[in-house]
Amino acid sequence: MSDNNNQPNHLNQQWRLVKRPQGLFQLSDFEFREEPLADLADGQILVKINYLSLDPTQRVWAQSDSYLPAVELGSVMRSLGMGEVIASQNPKFNPGDIVQGMTGWQSHLITDGKGFAKVPRLPGVPLAAFLGPLGMTGMTAYVGLLDIGKPKEGETVVVSGAAGAVGSMVCQIAKLKGCHVVGIAGSDEKCAWLKSLGVDGAINYKSENLYKSLKRNCPKGIDIYFENVGGKMLDAVLGQINVGARIPLCGYISQYTNPDPSQGIQNLSVLISKRAKIEGFLVLDHMQRATQIVTELATWAMSGKLKYQLDIVKGLKEAPIAVNKLFEGSNEGKLIIEV
Amino acid sequence: MSDNNNQPNHLNQQWRLVKRPQGLFQLSDFEFREEPLADLADGQILVKINYLSLDPTQRVWAQSDSYLPAVELGSVMRSLGMGEVIASQNPKFNPGDIVQGMTGWQSHLITDGKGFAKVPRLPGVPLAAFLGPLGMTGMTAYVGLLDIGKPKEGETVVVSGAAGAVGSMVCQIAKLKGCHVVGIAGSDEKCAWLKSLGVDGAINYKSENLYKSLKRNCPKGIDIYFENVGGKMLDAVLGQINVGARIPLCGYISQYTNPDPSQGIQNLSVLISKRAKIEGFLVLDHMQRATQIVTELATWAMSGKLKYQLDIVKGLKEAPIAVNKLFEGSNEGKLIIEV
Repeated sequence: MSDNNNQPNHLNQQWRLVKRPQGLFQLSDFEFREEPLADLADGQILVKINYLSLDPTQRVWAQSDSYLPAVELGSVMRSLGMGEVIASQNPKFNPGDIVQGMTGWQSHLITDGKGFAKVPRLPGVPLAAFLGPLGMTGMTAYVGLLDIGKPKEGETVVVSGAAGAVGSMVCQIAKLKGCHVVGIAGSDEKCAWLKSLGVDGAINYKSENLYKSLKRNCPKGIDIYFENVGGKMLDAVLGQINVGARIPLCGYISQYTNPDPSQGIQNLSVLISKRAKIEGFLVLDHMQRATQIVTELATWAMSGKLKYQLDIVKGLKEAPIAVNKLFEGSNEGKLIIEV
Repeated sequence: MSDNNNQPNHLNQQWRLVKRPQGLFQLSDFEFREEPLADLADGQILVKINYLSLDPTQRVWAQSDSYLPAVELGSVMRSLGMGEVIASQNPKFNPGDIVQGMTGWQSHLITDGKGFAKVPRLPGVPLAAFLGPLGMTGMTAYVGLLDIGKPKEGETVVVSGAAGAVGSMVCQIAKLKGCHVVGIAGSDEKCAWLKSLGVDGAINYKSENLYKSLKRNCPKGIDIYFENVGGKMLDAVLGQINVGARIPLCGYISQYTNPDPSQGIQNLSVLISKRAKIEGFLVLDHMQRATQIVTELATWAMSGKLKYQLDIVKGLKEAPIAVNKLFEGSNEGKLIIEV
């Protein structure tokens, strides 16, 4: 986190989006640029970016308008990131402050600081954790599971993408709330890791019959399904939900890179007989509670009740390739670029 | 409603379910039987059945276990109905009382009265209306729209199956709440009738491009979609919902008789970016509020604010054929058999 090169006169390295992706991201969807940094105007700060968060939602941002406008072609790829203030013309920020916000895929950022929050330095907690498990991804897990899922002790919670950044937090928070927790992931290694986090069951959907494994692991049916995947996985779960089930819809990664009409949801009508609901949410709607939620998450983490893995890839240059690990399912824990 | 033949010694006519239906109901799925009535035991009443309610959910009951166990093969077809008590060995009921409950497709019923409610005689309100618009179907509309949809004045409400028994009630209650209301139905006649009920727009999905017609009729997007149909209609609406939209899932009639995998829902992930929900419900869960809700509905009806159509088919013998009008969309208003 230290950097002596704190004069705003060196080059800014950037990845700009130049093509809308089709399927997985391609290197040719981006252009690497080096540009001199401008001088700071009054009210601005210069941030040297240390970490970038790679998230499935970036595929949506690159593709089309959604809850945010699509990234404009020719502009820096949108990304959550974290860095150190190395020069400031803004009284709210001092050099040495660690801040996070929408930095984009670049090495430096000049900003007026709006939308940026300071990150505390806590003993035993790596700063990068605030980009994920103790930041947006942890908050996403918290809000979806607790606000929408409303777990009660003894209920059965199934989590898809369970070994992912959000999913692994959901599994652990559900265990903290006294639930029977079953995670679905895509490899035996991921399943073993989930077991080490304390889940009651872990299903490798690539090697097991998902429907039967769910039946075996959820003998009392499914009360909450935290959904990151969609498609056939959702249909399999719908067939086993209990009356009054809640399905927080966090992500739909099965369709982000490979929209397959044959994976249209067949079992939706079961929501009627089960008086159940599917409800989408965005963590961005809950930022006013960030301090409360992050404090709670950090407290759990410092007392060892919440574990996380950071999958840190070194080098800004790797971002366009590394991001695809999310869609191939090859990341292990929260995927982060160390710039 | 008068009947002098109040001795329990005449024949009971019944339709028994003898085969699980495939596609539409067939006459051969049922067997017509005439049986002598037993004597009344202590605590029992004899009901001469006057009206039977025909509902899409009966197709589900005949097919398989759902929120109720499937109708047993060989037993009387399950049905909501209404009739007059013509003999009573139960102090809670007197001859002359009008009662409603699960009567089945038959001319007479001997029961201990559990699950049966008395129906009031109100000036200007036909008794049969309590089987539908002022009974279960009206309550279904009320609970789905108001409890799950929570309409606010000025919001846009779209209703599928809008000319049906439930849909037409939803349209009118939504208008009473100050909403912009658009109904979807399957003929120009139905659309004209919906207009006469006061809806702001009516779409004939068979002759119009549904997506474009929705765009034109809902210039501010869709806040509530009261869903009776499912399939492609749901996908078209999902493409136009607003942030925070609510979709009460009441029925899924598109799939009851013709499960078509190609109609799997493609656009479900939009629930995330729109922070929207789909929630199933059953009116049976709300029976403890029946008196309050039916009183409110009847008050609206007597003051002319709530109109309804009864599509009364005469003759118990017609039930197995008439019920298919629901799936062909050829009924106009609440479909009832006059026994």
